[in-house]
Amino acid sequence: MINYLSINLPLIIQDTAAIEGDMGMLWMLLSGILVFFMQAGFTLVEAGMTQSKNAVNIAMKNLLDISVGSITYWLVGYSLMYGDTSNGWFFWSGLFQGEGADLFFQTMFAATAATIVSGAIAGRTKFETYVVFTLIMTAIIYPISGGWQWQGSGWLTELGFIDFAGSSIVHGVGGFAALVAAYMVGPRTGKFVDGKVMPIAGHNQILATLGVFILWLGWFGFNGGSQLAWGGDDAVGASTVVLVTNLAAAAGALGALFTTWIYFGKPNIAHTLNGALAGLVSITAGCGNMTPGGALIAGLVGGIIVVFSIELIEKKLKIDDAIGAVSVHGVAGFWGTIVIGLWGVDGDAGIGLFNGGGGAQFVSQLIGALAYMVWAIVTSFIVFSILKLTMGLRVSEKEELEGLDLSEHGAIAYAGKRKRE
Amino acid sequence: MINYLSINLPLIIQDTAAIEGDMGMLWMLLSGILVFFMQAGFTLVEAGMTQSKNAVNIAMKNLLDISVGSITYWLVGYSLMYGDTSNGWFFWSGLFQGEGADLFFQTMFAATAATIVSGAIAGRTKFETYVVFTLIMTAIIYPISGGWQWQGSGWLTELGFIDFAGSSIVHGVGGFAALVAAYMVGPRTGKFVDGKVMPIAGHNQILATLGVFILWLGWFGFNGGSQLAWGGDDAVGASTVVLVTNLAAAAGALGALFTTWIYFGKPNIAHTLNGALAGLVSITAGCGNMTPGGALIAGLVGGIIVVFSIELIEKKLKIDDAIGAVSVHGVAGFWGTIVIGLWGVDGDAGIGLFNGGGGAQFVSQLIGALAYMVWAIVTSFIVFSILKLTMGLRVSEKEELEGLDLSEHGAIAYAGKRKRE
Amino acid sequence: MINYLSINLPLIIQDTAAIEGDMGMLWMLLSGILVFFMQAGFTLVEAGMTQSKNAVNIAMKNLLDISVGSITYWLVGYSLMYGDTSNGWFFWSGLFQGEGADLFFQTMFAATAATIVSGAIAGRTKFETYVVFTLIMTAIIYPISGGWQWQGSGWLTELGFIDFAGSSIVHGVGGFAALVAAYMVGPRTGKFVDGKVMPIAGHNQILATLGVFILWLGWFGFNGGSQLAWGGDDAVGASTVVLVTNLAAAAGALGALFTTWIYFGKPNIAHTLNGALAGLVSITAGCGNMTPGGALIAGLVGGIIVVFSIELIEKKLKIDDAIGAVSVHGVAGFWGTIVIGLWGVDGDAGIGLFNGGGGAQFVSQLIGALAYMVWAIVTSFIVFSILKLTMGLRVSEKEELEGLDLSEHGAIAYAGKRKRE
Repeated sequence: MINYLSINLPLIIQDTAAIEGDMGMLWMLLSGILVFFMQAGFTLVEAGMTQSKNAVNIAMKNLLDISVGSITYWLVGYSLMYGDTSNGWFFWSGLFQGEGADLFFQTMFAATAATIVSGAIAGRTKFETYVVFTLIMTAIIYPISGGWQWQGSGWLTELGFIDFAGSSIVHGVGGFAALVAAYMVGPRTGKFVDGKVMPIAGHNQILATLGVFILWLGWFGFNGGSQLAWGGDDAVGASTVVLVTNLAAAAGALGALFTTWIYFGKPNIAHTLNGALAGLVSITAGCGNMTPGGALIAGLVGGIIVVFSIELIEKKLKIDDAIGAVSVHGVAGFWGTIVIGLWGVDGDAGIGLFNGGGGAQFVSQLIGALAYMVWAIVTSFIVFSILKLTMGLRVSEKEELEGLDLSEHGAIAYAGKRKRE
Repeated sequence: MINYLSINLPLIIQDTAAIEGDMGMLWMLLSGILVFFMQAGFTLVEAGMTQSKNAVNIAMKNLLDISVGSITYWLVGYSLMYGDTSNGWFFWSGLFQGEGADLFFQTMFAATAATIVSGAIAGRTKFETYVVFTLIMTAIIYPISGGWQWQGSGWLTELGFIDFAGSSIVHGVGGFAALVAAYMVGPRTGKFVDGKVMPIAGHNQILATLGVFILWLGWFGFNGGSQLAWGGDDAVGASTVVLVTNLAAAAGALGALFTTWIYFGKPNIAHTLNGALAGLVSITAGCGNMTPGGALIAGLVGGIIVVFSIELIEKKLKIDDAIGAVSVHGVAGFWGTIVIGLWGVDGDAGIGLFNGGGGAQFVSQLIGALAYMVWAIVTSFIVFSILKLTMGLRVSEKEELEGLDLSEHGAIAYAGKRKRE
Repeated sequence: MINYLSINLPLIIQDTAAIEGDMGMLWMLLSGILVFFMQAGFTLVEAGMTQSKNAVNIAMKNLLDISVGSITYWLVGYSLMYGDTSNGWFFWSGLFQGEGADLFFQTMFAATAATIVSGAIAGRTKFETYVVFTLIMTAIIYPISGGWQWQGSGWLTELGFIDFAGSSIVHGVGGFAALVAAYMVGPRTGKFVDGKVMPIAGHNQILATLGVFILWLGWFGFNGGSQLAWGGDDAVGASTVVLVTNLAAAAGALGALFTTWIYFGKPNIAHTLNGALAGLVSITAGCGNMTPGGALIAGLVGGIIVVFSIELIEKKLKIDDAIGAVSVHGVAGFWGTIVIGLWGVDGDAGIGLFNGGGGAQFVSQLIGALAYMVWAIVTSFIVFSILKLTMGLRVSEKEELEGLDLSEHGAIAYAGKRKRE
């Protein structure tokens, strides 16, 4: 009798742990599937917010990001990010590391980081150059700095830095790489004429809207899946992550909508769409810590910031970021990272709102946000400098005016429509 | 030994319950994520079935619904619907109630109820007026009547009324509010000329079709998630809900397809799309009770009804419901509610088909369906009357002809396409 | 005491099994929901890759596939495929078999098999004829041969044949039926002029791209859900299936992208999209057995094959497959089936790569792949021959030139756009 029990009870406890492990794997796999779908969202946002003559090129770049990223991240990226051998800055465990739901989920984040750059440099960048960049981004740039925090023993982890789902690790890196890329590739022909900024309207706001809905959807997996587990506290935790993610997106959309209504006289769709995305980026770092109220305000501020940031980058810096990717991912990513130091954590006294915040945490967040910004800017600058000297960054002006769809792919996105209508 | 057991065995039983709770939370969260995606579906259906000059306005209204609804429903809506203090008609528990997967799931239903109105009044309604309406809809109108049944101790629950996922509670309320809205805003200029109904064709049937597929997809969460649990009987129950939901949608699509083929000579796409949606609405109340056969016939009848209802509202009532929302959500919602009294429940003798049905249940269903209809009509009438006197409901005729995208948002949906093609 | 234990411990073990059963049901239901969404993907791919004058017709055919298939497969299909009474070739258990998540999941596969044919014969086929074909496909052709392997006691199961998620069972059958259909319906007017192949460009590459992303997404459910369970080894198994499915898709896309870059001078979008799909089809049979490396190479080869196969069918066989469905589903399905005999299974010595492979398995795979090919060709030929003699297969040339949207449905996909732009 006693033996019977001593054999069976631990077995049962083990079963419970195993089942929680199985549920966690299910949640991560489903989250990864949702994050995968974000590639479709990026394609639609980028294509919809730019000209139809470059839509095929954008679709090809997004197909490339997920395809190249899926292979390179498995080949070396996962190992560079989660490897065991480490000095706190670099990690390695050999080629072809990672497996199953975990590798799948992490792969989708690498592809996202690359995709962010795609939109900013739309309409004038050589496809072959982009191929090389996306390969380096998914294989090396994103994984190395990702390990600083998410490997678990990196220097930013030691510092107490918090970035739950990647405001800086994914979006900051992607967004600031996009800044460098847009600067180095130069503006689209006709964007700045005699010092004046000329609008180049997107060709399909409905596809852009669908793209934002798909991204918003996928973000529930992006943030929620970053709980990395399901069961007990983790189930409640991941559910709360999804809830606050939605609140921040809603507030971000409304923040941008009313900002444009007040400042430009009419509620503007492109800014509202970017506001929703900025709200999402703003809560990506803090979604595991923020209260619903804190998340809402973080997202609201993100949605307001993005309107002015887009104006600033275009009008003051004279950098042509074709879809506002630098503001949405870089600037809002920076904001989302540091806001944790304002009202994102319990404890400390300080300048807390809703949850606590305070000096120590704020400094950690600032260091981390700056580290990812500097890393992205420096590495992208090196890569694009080499690419400029070797392959070249831009198509010719003739090709650009004709559209990259024809010059780079020998195709047009919307063949024969005129004949029908 | 005895102590050892008396400690551990209850603990194990508790674990099983906890794990079933965790699985239920996972299912509800995933269902909520699917229901969120329905906002994208509504955007595409509404934009695709109307003119391109109003597409940005529709996208903005849908972005608004989910953004405003996410905040207002958390602020007061959840409390008005699920609060503890109650007289059977009104509920309250204080501000900012609800949390996690449950609040997230319920929020998406509130946003859906608001969105239904958006399509019916497309093409002539002031955006600022719509902002106020959607706020009141998600904060007050939908939550109060929702509590009558779903809070669990409301007067309709006491009556034995059944509305599993909201044929009346969500779709009936949205649909009949849309009827009042379309009536009070008045028809689009050019819709009725000399007493004749003029067709105003939708500008993109492919986006409308994609929208219906997205709605159909999201409905699996809408209905299936309304099981509110997963594990044992609930797992089988929710799976069956999804199965019968699909059968009703399929039958609804075929019902409308063949009805138009027979009556109009050709199988019509707009009606087929609305038929699929009507099939879905028709099974939303009864999906927890219906047999597959009962669901199929309920959906089939819904798909047939919707064709004639759209004709009737347009030609007899001379109300311009731009996309058929009143018929799809209001009329089919009414049908889906009362059909439970015909062949939706076990027991009773009566006029049963497949499952039972009968007098007592039918009367309960009729009372409930009428209650939601009257509530939606009365409250919407009051709100739109006040809005008419204060902000005004319509844009000017000049603005309407120009398109709401330009007049309300200073944008066009499809910029520059002509130049490319 | 002893009784207390002997009652409770088996109960606990039963609970664990029950919970694993519940998790499996959740995974299958969610997978079925993902596979459902593939119908939207097929609609967009087929519509986007063909002319706008036939887009409504394509949408209607896809709405029809899922609607008819949902009913017929429940009525007789499931029974013909999974029935108990059997001689190894035919199965039956009576009408209206199957239930819940299992029936739902299997239904979606039947609808997929039908949909594959839709695209190949786009632009010239009578709608009423297609109605009859899709009915026979989902009710009879697909279920009967599906039972040979998936029922569990069919002749191909006995042979040791492997087709985890349906490279041959679904895609091979659909693809080779599409070949017969395209051949018998004949080419679109203007496709072959004086022996030369004329290009007929698709009207919306962005919708086609979105369609491929949706299919890629849905395929995670298609392949992953075919594990039919979740928990322990099955959780790891299904996760690995999703991982290798993604790798094969990525490799297929890159395979086609670089093949067209090398052979045609520019990376081509239509081929890249078909390459991703071919990669997915290529891993559908072996996703339960392949290593990640094996999957990647299988997908890569599939993506390369599809480019040449499309050229061959068009230029040598002079068969007008409007979107390359025969190559993507038939040819890549054949490849995906036999590659298991090369490097898809453990054991055997043979010509293994990554995993093993070898003679015995290869022969089984070849027999199975040929069996599905022959079955699809013969049954489709019979059905289309009868349809040709009775209802006719093609619309008139006048109707074809005008577009099927107008002639078959009295509608156009993009009304009024010209006026707006």
